Amino acid sequence: VSDARPIGFFDSGVGGLTVLREVIRRLPHESTVYLGDNARAPYGPRSDEEVRAFSSECLDVLAERDVKAIVVACNTSSAVALPDLRLRYDVPVLGVVRPGATAAVLASRNRRIGVIGTNATIRSHAYFQAIKDENPFVDVAEHATPELVPLVEAGQLEGPVVDDVLRRSLAPLLESGHSIDTLLLGCTHYPLLLHAIRAIVGPDIAVVDTAASTASALASLLEVNALAAPTGVAPGHVQLTTGDVAAFRVIADRLFGESAPPVESVAAAGAA
Amino acid sequence: VSDARPIGFFDSGVGGLTVLREVIRRLPHESTVYLGDNARAPYGPRSDEEVRAFSSECLDVLAERDVKAIVVACNTSSAVALPDLRLRYDVPVLGVVRPGATAAVLASRNRRIGVIGTNATIRSHAYFQAIKDENPFVDVAEHATPELVPLVEAGQLEGPVVDDVLRRSLAPLLESGHSIDTLLLGCTHYPLLLHAIRAIVGPDIAVVDTAASTASALASLLEVNALAAPTGVAPGHVQLTTGDVAAFRVIADRLFGESAPPVESVAAAGAA
Repeated sequence: VSDARPIGFFDSGVGGLTVLREVIRRLPHESTVYLGDNARAPYGPRSDEEVRAFSSECLDVLAERDVKAIVVACNTSSAVALPDLRLRYDVPVLGVVRPGATAAVLASRNRRIGVIGTNATIRSHAYFQAIKDENPFVDVAEHATPELVPLVEAGQLEGPVVDDVLRRSLAPLLESGHSIDTLLLGCTHYPLLLHAIRAIVGPDIAVVDTAASTASALASLLEVNALAAPTGVAPGHVQLTTGDVAAFRVIADRLFGESAPPVESVAAAGAA
Repeated sequence: VSDARPIGFFDSGVGGLTVLREVIRRLPHESTVYLGDNARAPYGPRSDEEVRAFSSECLDVLAERDVKAIVVACNTSSAVALPDLRLRYDVPVLGVVRPGATAAVLASRNRRIGVIGTNATIRSHAYFQAIKDENPFVDVAEHATPELVPLVEAGQLEGPVVDDVLRRSLAPLLESGHSIDTLLLGCTHYPLLLHAIRAIVGPDIAVVDTAASTASALASLLEVNALAAPTGVAPGHVQLTTGDVAAFRVIADRLFGESAPPVESVAAAGAA
C-alpha cells in the first residue's frame, strides 16, 4: 500500500514551516509541496469570508499539484475555514488545532491547560472548544501573546530581549491561580521559541507544540488511509510563496539549513 | 459534510466493546456495527496466517454492511493483519495499537512507559515499536499479564481477589527499577479493570487506555476525511457474533446496561 504523491501544506506565511520541518524529520520518505500566502499575510485581521476565500484559492494551487492530503498549517484558517475546505476537496484535510488540543489533554495530569496564540486564534476560542470536546472536565486558560510572532519574523529566537518579552507574555498564565501543568503553543511560529519558553516555564510544565502533534496526526492519517509513500523512492520538496521569494528563503534557510527546499513564486487566484 | 453510514468494529470477541462504548459516548450521532468472532476466539494462540484470514473474513461481513470506516478493536489483529486489511478495503482502517502508543508517549513526562497485554500482544512487540516510532528516546517496559482476561470474562472486575491478582501481575513493572510514570493498557479487556488498576498504581502513574485513545483517533479520522454522521438522524447500533448470542449478551449488558444494542448471530465465511 503506497502512494508517491506529495503532501500539500498551506499557511498564510512562514509559521507552517515548523510543521513541515517536523513532518520531513518524522516521515522522510514523503514528498511535500508547501504554499505560503505571504502576499496576503497575516490572516489574523481578515474577515472570516476573506480567510475562507484565500484558503480555497491556495488549496486550489495545491490540488493542481495532485497532492494526496492537505495540512492546513495555519491556526486562523484551521479555526475558520476547515469545514468549507473539506467540502471542497476529495483528499483528507488536516488542521493544526485538534492535534494540538488532543496532545495537550493527554499531557496534562491536573487538567489545567494554558493556551497561547495570536489575537485572532485566542478570540476564536478554537483551542478551548477542541480541548473541551476531548475532555469537558479540563480547565482552559487562554491568553493572547501577539508580541511573539514579530520576534520570530525578525529572527530573534533567544537572548535577554526574547527572555524578557516571554516572561512578560507568559506571566498572566504562570503567576495567577491557574496552576497549569501544560502549556499549549497555539501558533505555528512558537516552536521556534521552544527552548526559550521551556527555560522560563520550568520542568514542571509540559510544553506541547502543534508542529509535533500535527506531524504525529499526519503519520496516523497516512497509515489509516493507506496513503504512505513507498520507501524506495527519493522524495521531492518544493516551497511556493505568493510573496517575496528572497524574504521567504531567509526564514526557510534558518529552519532547514542547507537542506532547505527550493522556493518558487506562485500566484494564487486573487493574490498579487 | 456528512455520511450516515455506520462505523464497523471488529474484535476476536468482546474486548473491543470497551472501544465501542467509548465511541458511542463520544460520538453520539454515529451508527455502529460490531462483529465479535467469538466462535474462533481467542486469536492470541493462532498463527499469523490464521489471524489474517479470520480478520479478512470478518471485515468482509462488515464491508457487506456498507461501513464508512473500520476499527480493528483487537490487539492481535492490529499487530498482525492491519497492512493486509488496508490493502483489501477502500475505507479507512484504524487499529488500536498506534492510538494507544501515541497517547502514552504524550502522557509520560519521564519517558518511562510500562505496557501490559496478553502473551500474544507482548510477544509481538507492537506497542514497543509504535512507541519507539513516536519517540525513540522513550524507555518501554513490556510485561504480559495473561491472568487478567479470564478475570474480565468471568465478570470479576473488583474486590479482594481482583486486587490480589492485579498486585501480583503489576509488581514486576512497579517494584523494579523501571520508574515508569505511565502505564499503557495494551488490551481492550483491561479498561473494565480501570478503577482497580488505578487504585493499585496510585496517583503518580498515569493509566492510558486504548479504548479512549482509539475513540479520539476515530473522531479525528471522521473529521479529517469528512465522514462524520449528520446530527439530525437517530443513530442505529447492532452487534454481531459468530459465537453464542446469549453469552455475548451477558457481557454487552454489563458494559452498556439498558442501552445495550441488539445482538445477532452471524456466520463469517470460515467460522462455525
